[in-house]
Amino acid sequence: MKQKTIESKVLEIKDKSELMVDLSYSSLIYDHTPIAKEVYELEEVIDILYEEIQHDILNGVKEGATSVEDAHVLMRLAKAGEEIADAALEIADVQLRDVELHPIVKLSIRESDEVLTRVQVLESSILCNKTLGQLKLGSETGMTVIAMRHQNHWLYGPNKNTMIDPNDILFAKGPEDGETHLIELAEGKTSEI
Amino acid sequence: MKQKTIESKVLEIKDKSELMVDLSYSSLIYDHTPIAKEVYELEEVIDILYEEIQHDILNGVKEGATSVEDAHVLMRLAKAGEEIADAALEIADVQLRDVELHPIVKLSIRESDEVLTRVQVLESSILCNKTLGQLKLGSETGMTVIAMRHQNHWLYGPNKNTMIDPNDILFAKGPEDGETHLIELAEGKTSEI
Repeated sequence: MKQKTIESKVLEIKDKSELMVDLSYSSLIYDHTPIAKEVYELEEVIDILYEEIQHDILNGVKEGATSVEDAHVLMRLAKAGEEIADAALEIADVQLRDVELHPIVKLSIRESDEVLTRVQVLESSILCNKTLGQLKLGSETGMTVIAMRHQNHWLYGPNKNTMIDPNDILFAKGPEDGETHLIELAEGKTSEI
Repeated sequence: MKQKTIESKVLEIKDKSELMVDLSYSSLIYDHTPIAKEVYELEEVIDILYEEIQHDILNGVKEGATSVEDAHVLMRLAKAGEEIADAALEIADVQLRDVELHPIVKLSIRESDEVLTRVQVLESSILCNKTLGQLKLGSETGMTVIAMRHQNHWLYGPNKNTMIDPNDILFAKGPEDGETHLIELAEGKTSEI
């Protein structure tokens, strides 16, 4: 039981740190400070998780519930995730210091293997009033929604139950032709998901 | 011209470092040493790139082609990418040290928001003898191929022109229902992409 809790925390660090990298680059490309601030908030969550994991592992070893070898692996994986989170913080910090990013730098980051995009969902869009779970945008368009402005607040790493309302703003990442498809869906230019 | 070169190198660090993270976790989940070794090779590429970027930036500043502010931002972005690559190396190192990973740890990493999967392409599959560019797996299934065994050698970060042959092994990442779709395609259970 204890063991499972440690692993789920390590997984949480993995998922959150990767989300932070995507959010931090998005904040730079779209000159978007709320997302950069969220990276700071997430870093605090990760710091707490990391402390907890170390504590849990040491207790697990002491009580004989965790082998020394497993403990070592879990510590290293947690540390690697925490370092990725620190790197994301560095990237977000460029945005928060109010440095005006050179357009060529922005363009260059956007032209990554996986494109980061921002789109507003119009009232005429088929995406309105459906959950991310119903839409399956990930498998149908290749685009993963990493953040969205929904009913006057920001959601980061939205889940399957998150509903899209008219005028929501989506930040998503995925392949280039997935981006085109998502934009057409959001702007009501196609209803074929 | 110089400026463009620096940015494209920073982008290369960004893309390669993120690929390294995916490859390193894949090596752990599938107990796959060749992929872990590739992370080491990529880390060397990134170290060279990072040195070159610093050199290019300093020259750009000296010659007046790069502003001090742009130089600072580019240095920080390159550094962040290099740190992500270092973290990936840490993860790959767990695999290379021949530590037998606890099944629960493997399972837990696999159950990430984005699933990492491995599948062999059977001769009956519609994927055979087509390029990744033709198939558009990214936008059609949500799965990005991060590595593949093709004609007796491994390819890491394959591109649009990479052809899939019968019996190739694909390592890919994406959403859970995208994984199901990719496996069905690779095993010839469906021909609907």
